[in-house]
This record gives sequence, structure tokens and C-alpha cells, in this order.
Amino acid sequence: MTIGSLLGDRSVALRIDNFSKNGRIVNVETSERPESVVARPGKRERTHAQLVDAALRVIARKDAAALSILELAHEAEVSHGTVYNYFRTREEIVDAVALRLADDFSEQQSQMFAGLEEGAARLTLAVRHFVLRAAEDRAWGLVFLRVSAAAARLGHTVTLKTLGNLRRGLKAGTFRYESEAAALDLVFGTTLAGMRTVLDGRAGRGHDRDIAYTVLRGLGATRSEAERLVARPFPDLDAAGGTAVGSNAGARRSPPPRSR
Amino acid sequence: MTIGSLLGDRSVALRIDNFSKNGRIVNVETSERPESVVARPGKRERTHAQLVDAALRVIARKDAAALSILELAHEAEVSHGTVYNYFRTREEIVDAVALRLADDFSEQQSQMFAGLEEGAARLTLAVRHFVLRAAEDRAWGLVFLRVSAAAARLGHTVTLKTLGNLRRGLKAGTFRYESEAAALDLVFGTTLAGMRTVLDGRAGRGHDRDIAYTVLRGLGATRSEAERLVARPFPDLDAAGGTAVGSNAGARRSPPPRSR
Repeated sequence: MTIGSLLGDRSVALRIDNFSKNGRIVNVETSERPESVVARPGKRERTHAQLVDAALRVIARKDAAALSILELAHEAEVSHGTVYNYFRTREEIVDAVALRLADDFSEQQSQMFAGLEEGAARLTLAVRHFVLRAAEDRAWGLVFLRVSAAAARLGHTVTLKTLGNLRRGLKAGTFRYESEAAALDLVFGTTLAGMRTVLDGRAGRGHDRDIAYTVLRGLGATRSEAERLVARPFPDLDAAGGTAVGSNAGARRSPPPRSR
Repeated sequence: MTIGSLLGDRSVALRIDNFSKNGRIVNVETSERPESVVARPGKRERTHAQLVDAALRVIARKDAAALSILELAHEAEVSHGTVYNYFRTREEIVDAVALRLADDFSEQQSQMFAGLEEGAARLTLAVRHFVLRAAEDRAWGLVFLRVSAAAARLGHTVTLKTLGNLRRGLKAGTFRYESEAAALDLVFGTTLAGMRTVLDGRAGRGHDRDIAYTVLRGLGATRSEAERLVARPFPDLDAAGGTAVGSNAGARRSPPPRSR
């Protein structure tokens, strides 16, 4: 399936209106933000957020690489010059979108992981969360993969948090890897490939657990350790502030892990 | 580093002229093909190859998503209508480029693996080969990552060969994985992420061995099995027909694996 054909999918067009912001659903069509969540932003912050919202909508319809300043101005209903007050290049816009998606997601995960100290357990839930989110919110998954391929700064925060979990797991003796660079490539590469497989409809139920199990084994966890970690139930996101969940939310209820 | 800034790199512009074709270097600037390697192609095949060569040059300079029929016609110095005789959409062009790169690479690997029966050993060399090639030929690596993100059909051949090696390794008892889909995501995702790390200059020497070791462990190989497999010397590609090797060809001589 090509990216072009994926974008022809009406479910994307219908569901791209809602992106979560700090764990709450935000209607990007109108740039509505829940007043209680954030301090009332100044005009400059509002316009910046409005432009990032517009860029999200454009990228959801086409490739990030094809986004132009002109198109963004048209989508945001502002002048060409206004866009240039905030962004000089397409790369800066894509980076802003990537940071927005990564920050939102990272914020959700922080709520989810409150009180969970074990690095390997946090990493397991984080990997599963990315794959589950792609299954639950197709529009979000497509945009995330698109910007992660194009952005320079995607996941600086995500990288730091992942490194923290890797090092805690190593110190605890759960992980046994030699190269930190290869460990990061394993975690990010396999997770993104797992999201792509889900979005292409090639994954069975429980792909989030299968991907997490594979990643844990690649990091040197034993079979029994990896089985214990993927067997943990997934925390209830709704209780932790809610997220933009699509009509196929049942995908979160992945079956219990197979015995291996 | 953004894709845009990578493309501003002069080393890319200088070295994109040469792509290997069936293990021999081909000058894509002039579409020169070694007569002894392929049967003299008909006019239609020649024009198709010429258009794919031109598309390679355009994609090497910018994103695959920004390639247009108009631009391809200009680059190949043919009429708009001629391009439409061969390709109807940008997606078809990107797919043709992806197939060309994957087929060439697959052909090289077949020569390399002649006489090697062990699935796990073939998979190990294949993974290392992708990472090494990105290190040795930056232009090839950048184009490969770009088309692999955009193409629908990249690596159908590569997928089938990888599945063959996975199943042989499973049958031999070297691999112990449950989900074939997750195993493929692990192999492709980690390898592509490893190539990206090399291209971004974030990898140390021996990243090809580190990535292969991590993948083998993720597939369930024991530490001693994974160590044995990555300790194998890399076959001499030059003896097997040669490949397009850049000025940093020394990168192939990765250091012996660390003891783990």
C-alpha cells in the first residue's frame, strides 16, 4: 500500500480533526484548547499553535516533504509573511509538528508510568503504547510515521527517556547489551516498523506484545523475564486523563501473551 | 541533522553519479551499462532504465515525495508525454527506483552468499551488509532510506529472502521466535535504524556487528551463538564482482567483536 493510497482512506480524513493535547482531546480544526489545562497563551504562542495545527492537517493529507510555506499559509488562513515570522523552512515546520506529537505522547506516558520505577517495565509499556496507539488512531499513526521519517528533532525527549529506562534496566541486570547505539536502534527501529505493520493491516492482534517481547529479548532479557514483562496489564489510559481513542479501541485489549 | 541539510552535503552531489548495477559500477549520469553483463536491451527497456536513472538522480537531490513527472522529464531530457508512457504517478516512479536498488543489492548478496547454507549466517551477513554499505556509500544509503520510507513495493524480494533465512534458522534451532511478523519488524526496523545512525554520524566503528548481534539476540539466539555468527569475517565483495565503494571503504574493516 502506498502512502498516497493510505491518504485516500476516508477514515483518515474523517478522524484527523482530533489530536490529543496534554492527554486531552483537542479539535485541531478550530484550535480549541481546554482553558483549564494550559495558562492562557499570548498572541504569539496562539498563532504558533495555530500554524502547527494547520501543518498537522496538511501533513495528514500528504507527505511532509511536500508541505510548503505557501500551502501552510493557505491552510491556516494567514498571510505568507505571517508564516515566515514563525518558520523559515519546511524543515522547521516538520520539526515543530514532530516535537508537538512527541511531547504530547511523552506527557501521556508520564501520567501512565506514575509510580512505576522499573526501567524495563516502563520501556515495555512505552513500546506497546506506540504500537497500540497506531492501531487505535490510524490518523495519528500515519502522521507520526511520516514526520518521524522527515524530522531532524523528533523524539529528543523520547530518546532521553528511553536512554534512562535502558540504563536502569542494565543496572538492574534485566538488560544485557553492549552497544547503547545499537540498543536505541533496536527499540526505535522495531517499534516504528511494528507501527507500520499495524497501519498496513499486516499485524495480528497482540502485535504490541509481540513487538515488546522481541525488543526485550534483543536487549538481552531472558525468556522468563520478557514473558513476565509483557504479561503486565496495560494501564487504563482513560483513567489517566484520556486520549484520542478511535472506534477500534478494542485493539488495546490484546490477548494474553502466548507461552513461548 | 535534517534531510535538507544532508542533501546540501557536497559529498552526496559528487558521489551520486555511480550506482552499482548487477555488482558492477554504472555511471548513471550517462546510463552506461557494461555490455557484457546484460543482453542488449530493446528501446523500451533502455528508455525505462534511463528514466529510473534520472529519478535516482532527482531523489538523491531531494525528497522522493517531492519528485514530479515534470521534473523527471526535465532531468531525463525527454518529453512529458514520454514519461507518461512509462509511469502514471510519482508512486510508480518511486517504486521502480526502490525495486532497482533492492534488486541490485539482492543480486550482490546472492553472489556473496554462494555456498553458505546456514540461514542464521546468511541473515547475519545480510544485516551487516546493509549497514556497511550505508557507511561506505553515503549517497546510496541516503537514497535507500528515502525510497524505503516512500515506496510500496520495496524489498518484496528482500522480504522473501529474509523469511527464508528466518525459517531456516528456526528449523535449525538457532532462532526461537514466536511471531514471524514481529521478527520481520525487528530485522528491517533495526537494520534501517542502524543505517540512519551510520548516515547521521552517530555510530562507532563496528556498528554493523553491533546491529547484527542485537538482531540475532532479538530472534532468540543465545549469546554464544550470536557471538559466533558476528565473528565471521565479511566476504570480500570485490572478489565477487565488485561494488560501488566510496573513499571511506576502510569502514568495512570493522573491528573484531567485543567479548560480551
